[in-house]
This record gives sequence, C-alpha cells and structure tokens, in this order.
Amino acid sequence: MKDIIIATHGHLSYEFKDTVELFVGKKDNIRCFGMTKEKANNAAQKELTEMIGDSDEEQLIVLTDLMGGSPANICAELLMEGHRFELLSGLNLPMLLTLLTQDSNGISAKELVGNILTEGADGIIDIGDVIRKELIDND
Amino acid sequence: MKDIIIATHGHLSYEFKDTVELFVGKKDNIRCFGMTKEKANNAAQKELTEMIGDSDEEQLIVLTDLMGGSPANICAELLMEGHRFELLSGLNLPMLLTLLTQDSNGISAKELVGNILTEGADGIIDIGDVIRKELIDND
Repeated sequence: MKDIIIATHGHLSYEFKDTVELFVGKKDNIRCFGMTKEKANNAAQKELTEMIGDSDEEQLIVLTDLMGGSPANICAELLMEGHRFELLSGLNLPMLLTLLTQDSNGISAKELVGNILTEGADGIIDIGDVIRKELIDND
Repeated sequence: MKDIIIATHGHLSYEFKDTVELFVGKKDNIRCFGMTKEKANNAAQKELTEMIGDSDEEQLIVLTDLMGGSPANICAELLMEGHRFELLSGLNLPMLLTLLTQDSNGISAKELVGNILTEGADGIIDIGDVIRKELIDND
C-alpha cells in the first residue's frame, strides 16, 4: 500500500480525505498538508520536508491542487533537491478514488500514476452537453 | 456574473469555496451543496431542486465532484426533467479558478464551459515526470 500525501491550499486536503473515506472507509495511509493564510512559506517547507522524509517513487505519491501553487512548488523543489516521490497536480475526486481502489501490491507506481492521470482527466465531463444531446436524439 | 453551485459528497464543496476564495476573495455567487451520510436522497433532491430553481444555461453553472455520484445524478435528473443549467463533473481547483477568473459579461456559457473543461484537464499534470526529465536533460 502506497503512502499518500494530499497537499493543497486551505483545508481542501483534509476535506478530500474525509470525503473519499465516505466511499472507501477510513484510510491510515493518507496524510494532509494545508497551506493556510497564516502559514509562512519556510514553515510550510519544513512541514512538507518532514512529511515527505526519505521515501521513493514506489512508496510515496503526493497529490496537489494546483501546478504553480505553493504546495506543488515546495514539493517540486524537494524533487529537484533529490527527494524521491511521485508528484501530481489538479487533484479531483476521480483521481483520489482511482488511487485508493487500484493501489494493490501488484501495481507499479508508474502504472498507478498513469491510471490516476487518465481517470482524473476522463472524469471531467460536460454532463449537461451529454444529456442535452440525448434529449435531442430521443425527440 | 454567473450563479455557481458546487455540489459534492461530504463537505468538499464548502472547502472548495473557502479555498478558492484564498485566491480571488469572497464570492457571493457561489452556493454549496453537501451530500453527507445523514442526508436522505429525497431530502437531497428537494434541496438541489430548490437551489437550482428556474434558471437557464447562460446563468447557472453546477460543478460536481463525480460522474455517477449522488449529487451529479440528482442534477442530471433535473436536467432531464427540463431544468436548464450547465452541469460539469470532476471538479478540481483549476476548473473553479478558470470559472471565477474568466466569468465576465462578454463570455458565453458555452465558451466558459469549454475553457473550464480544458483548463481542468490540462491542470492534471505529472509534475514528478516533468522534473525527472528536466534533471536528466540538465545532466
């Protein structure tokens, strides 16, 4: 089972954890980081450095909310300094559900990350457009 | 300015609102719906029906967390019953930021929705892969 860190602005990370647990039950392998207004950048760097620790790409996946935002930038700097983990941005619920339902002993981090990226993008759907087309087809 | 409803499981919707407001300031045009464990399906239907009311695609955009989940399903049923609004799934922070920063008098709902879908999918990035390739190129 992979270690997961959700790192976002505000408290979004904590709510992603609570919400996905409505689907899959309590998860001990998820930790959360929140970049709040009160948190200074060097305190955030220290916190994330300690959370990430000595891991590697096969063991740790870090999910962030926004490319270019502070949580993703701090994690990107840690990668450039030689820390090793998977790092994704643009977190949505399909990505987190894919990670938690497909993470088993057999799957490599590379395959798992590929599936998370695909399911995350495929989960962004213009439902209104789909339904309006169906209604026209059924007329 | 469009009316926006964020409709998710748990309290994710409320936290998306609070978090995006760290970037763009307080927004009066966002309302939130949370499908909690305690909420019965018919109570949820009633609540969303009242929130959506009599609108149209140019005025109201509903953002949901997950295609096939209760909030998206209830909204899809309302569309099929003849209510009119834009309905998207797979909400991430890039989608919400795109909506709030590009929503101006000149833009049509269709163009805005297209941009939200594009920016949402483009915001899902394998940052780890990007950085590892850069490190190799710089060697």
